[in-house]
Amino acid sequence: MIAIKKYQLSIEEQLKTLSAPGHPVELYAPVEYIVSLGGKRIRPVLVLAACELFDGKHSDALPAAVAIEMFHNFTLVHDDIMDKAPLRRGKTTVHEKWNDNTAILSGDVMLVKAYLELSKIDPLKLPVVLEVFSKTAIEVCEGQQLDMNYESREVISIAMYLEMIGLKTAALIAASLQLGALAGGARAEDAARMYDFGKNLGMAFQLQDDILDVYGDEKKFGKQKGGDIISNKKTFLLLKAMELSAGKPELEKELSEWLRVAGAEMEKKVGAVTAIYNRLGIRAMAENEMTRYYQEALKNLHDIPLTQNKKKDLIDFVDSLIVREN
Amino acid sequence: MIAIKKYQLSIEEQLKTLSAPGHPVELYAPVEYIVSLGGKRIRPVLVLAACELFDGKHSDALPAAVAIEMFHNFTLVHDDIMDKAPLRRGKTTVHEKWNDNTAILSGDVMLVKAYLELSKIDPLKLPVVLEVFSKTAIEVCEGQQLDMNYESREVISIAMYLEMIGLKTAALIAASLQLGALAGGARAEDAARMYDFGKNLGMAFQLQDDILDVYGDEKKFGKQKGGDIISNKKTFLLLKAMELSAGKPELEKELSEWLRVAGAEMEKKVGAVTAIYNRLGIRAMAENEMTRYYQEALKNLHDIPLTQNKKKDLIDFVDSLIVREN
Repeated sequence: MIAIKKYQLSIEEQLKTLSAPGHPVELYAPVEYIVSLGGKRIRPVLVLAACELFDGKHSDALPAAVAIEMFHNFTLVHDDIMDKAPLRRGKTTVHEKWNDNTAILSGDVMLVKAYLELSKIDPLKLPVVLEVFSKTAIEVCEGQQLDMNYESREVISIAMYLEMIGLKTAALIAASLQLGALAGGARAEDAARMYDFGKNLGMAFQLQDDILDVYGDEKKFGKQKGGDIISNKKTFLLLKAMELSAGKPELEKELSEWLRVAGAEMEKKVGAVTAIYNRLGIRAMAENEMTRYYQEALKNLHDIPLTQNKKKDLIDFVDSLIVREN
Repeated sequence: MIAIKKYQLSIEEQLKTLSAPGHPVELYAPVEYIVSLGGKRIRPVLVLAACELFDGKHSDALPAAVAIEMFHNFTLVHDDIMDKAPLRRGKTTVHEKWNDNTAILSGDVMLVKAYLELSKIDPLKLPVVLEVFSKTAIEVCEGQQLDMNYESREVISIAMYLEMIGLKTAALIAASLQLGALAGGARAEDAARMYDFGKNLGMAFQLQDDILDVYGDEKKFGKQKGGDIISNKKTFLLLKAMELSAGKPELEKELSEWLRVAGAEMEKKVGAVTAIYNRLGIRAMAENEMTRYYQEALKNLHDIPLTQNKKKDLIDFVDSLIVREN
């Protein structure tokens, strides 16, 4: 894990430079603000770890790592406008602290800064890096659009949900690992395996988020418990519960009545919907699905022809992100 | 001018491919819509003309040309949200036809698509092209921020205004010519001269827009006459009038009273403010300033060591964009 600490320090240093205050201050203050809110920097750490896995120097992948993190922060700023979210990482969102226009434009400049950073990558690797990065960025936009579409649709299948999180969340984790591998000199086929590893890992992470929202330790994760239930977010858990209650009129009625509850009684709603999940055994199903993706991810990594010893740091890091008990 | 027609055809064809409908339709329909609204495609034509000026094939510069036009359209979509503009090129704006969220996200995907297109440029030229494009994109964001800042500020100097239009408008024209030159194989110093040519040309274009808003032929330009006056837009003309009326209490009072007029009486307001401009000789001053920039632009082009014959198409094209009488 010492390598991970080293990566995190390099990333923080570069992010600080890239989000330094500038003129006009109205444009750049929000950039500094959102980047300084931190987070675990999972994506850029994965970029650097993937690079060193293939014997690259982590500094070679640093532009891609910082570009990925800057892009991720850009999506947070714009998504929060679209979702009218008041809080991000426990702090006021950019559009709430300033206003929508500021959040739009500061987000835009972050997206451009991500690309400016990317232009510093080894010129020989730039064409493919730029293509992978851009195609992934398009997928993330498509995922966000599907997520918004789903809000106003009654019936969403689990398959549709998995497609959406694959685009909105897992694609960027996948690209992080692929770009790191490419920067580290991996062959195209191994970089593609790293992509698959990341795609499955990203799916597992999102399913874990869905589970922790309901069953996580509030103190440990610093998030309001049941936020997804309160907002009727169509997560794996809710969609599974809807699927299993279909054709069972009583259960169907109970669930749909709780979904209509808004305004007050939110604690009661969280308790009641959780009780339905418990009755249906939703938690175990979600955990199974998550574990299936995680095992598939490890298999992808296993298939890459490098010694287990080389892969240890990366495996330890992703394993530290999987929560085993609450 | 035959070359220009050829450029325009290539550009339209590529834009059509790049903005073709896709899934999810909610994301891509607005892209197709805004791109299909047309416009003169001035920027991408300049990219291709600059490329052929240095004996490049125009197809070599096509990715950069289309990226610039896609970027330009992205800025229109996001600026229109920020300005709450109802119309663009005489048609409903994206955020009005759909909604703000759609306009934000479709704009984002256009910016990414611009970069994806850029990745197709000659790999040897990609690093510098990506850097110039991104630095320019940042300037455009900075210009838009200054433009918004100026709305709520009482006192704006002419110098501040020129800085703002330099960033928001002229930088992209400048980059178009520089990128085209680079794609065409120009030496760095000649590409830099093309940038200067474009910067001065862009300033002249914006000043011309300011003048035409008040003095242009409504039928010819398809814009509501006096739109800038109605919205108290701090153009070169208004700022000059403010500057010249400072210290002349009667004139100052008359102008500031008209600026406070909102709601009804808009035709009267346009007439009255235009009359003040006429009394102060603002039109001639603006035209002088515009001509000064245009002459400077031609001088920049003249300084590039190529025969006048080679430059003819490009000069004819930019000259066709300068309006000589109303």
